[in-house]
Amino acid sequence: MRILGFDPGTLHTGYGVLQAEAGRLQALAVGRISPPRSAPLADRLAQISLEARELLARWQPEWVVVESPFHGPNTRSLISLAEARGALLATAALSGARLLEYTPAEVKLAVTGSGRAEKEQVARMVRVLLGLGDEGLPFDATDALAVAICCAQRSRMDALLSPSRASSLTRK
Amino acid sequence: MRILGFDPGTLHTGYGVLQAEAGRLQALAVGRISPPRSAPLADRLAQISLEARELLARWQPEWVVVESPFHGPNTRSLISLAEARGALLATAALSGARLLEYTPAEVKLAVTGSGRAEKEQVARMVRVLLGLGDEGLPFDATDALAVAICCAQRSRMDALLSPSRASSLTRK
Repeated sequence: MRILGFDPGTLHTGYGVLQAEAGRLQALAVGRISPPRSAPLADRLAQISLEARELLARWQPEWVVVESPFHGPNTRSLISLAEARGALLATAALSGARLLEYTPAEVKLAVTGSGRAEKEQVARMVRVLLGLGDEGLPFDATDALAVAICCAQRSRMDALLSPSRASSLTRK
Repeated sequence: MRILGFDPGTLHTGYGVLQAEAGRLQALAVGRISPPRSAPLADRLAQISLEARELLARWQPEWVVVESPFHGPNTRSLISLAEARGALLATAALSGARLLEYTPAEVKLAVTGSGRAEKEQVARMVRVLLGLGDEGLPFDATDALAVAICCAQRSRMDALLSPSRASSLTRK
């Protein structure tokens, strides 16, 4: 199963591509989309949309997962995130991929076992789970991988808990 | 000068196309994009993006203007508006149109003379300024026309106040 995770933002939008097979996780690509800070908002959103379209075409993910905070200290920054997310979600839906959104707390919980983990702790666990070295990846990038890991873990859990699987267990 | 105005929302996105020549305003098209309420957010955003793309291709506006509130009683609805706006702005910027954003207060002021006018008053003035009858247009649609009118009035004002125009006045 191939998963493309995004951590959206109008300054930097992190992305991470994950291959998940039977609990084995492998990072295929990671990086961030960073439109020029001086560009008008609409041009930055257009660049996010264009680069996301390229990632979708190149990696053909079955799932696209987006981190979606709905609370924050600052309404202005929540709005700015929502603008980037809107551009991303429209682009991803037009590509035909299946989409999921997770809150930051859900992602932290899946990756570290605590919904209130610090960014450093999330980044460290992402490196451990994916066998990455300390490449100096920015938090936008490790967060995007964390969102993808959250999706992989949840779909594995769902498979374990689904009725068909449960009945195959009882048959043993 | 052709102007396409949008009043974005994830439930209804109003649009209005205006032709403005030497202070004369004419509505060419008005309506709203209304994705199915039951559809997932990303699919609704994708539909807004697709229909906006069609409007841009059909009307070839020189200006695209979007109403952008940054304050409201409810953070959740501001976020929802920002998601729709993000999808719209990215789509419009990719079309190559020139983009402007106005706050609701700027639009109300331009159309009614008061930044605190009620929606009914804005709708009434839009009908008066464009010579429209009482077609039962929804507020999303009259608001979109109001945003386009705001753009037309401001660009007229800018032309009147620009240095070249000022010097031509002093030469009289």
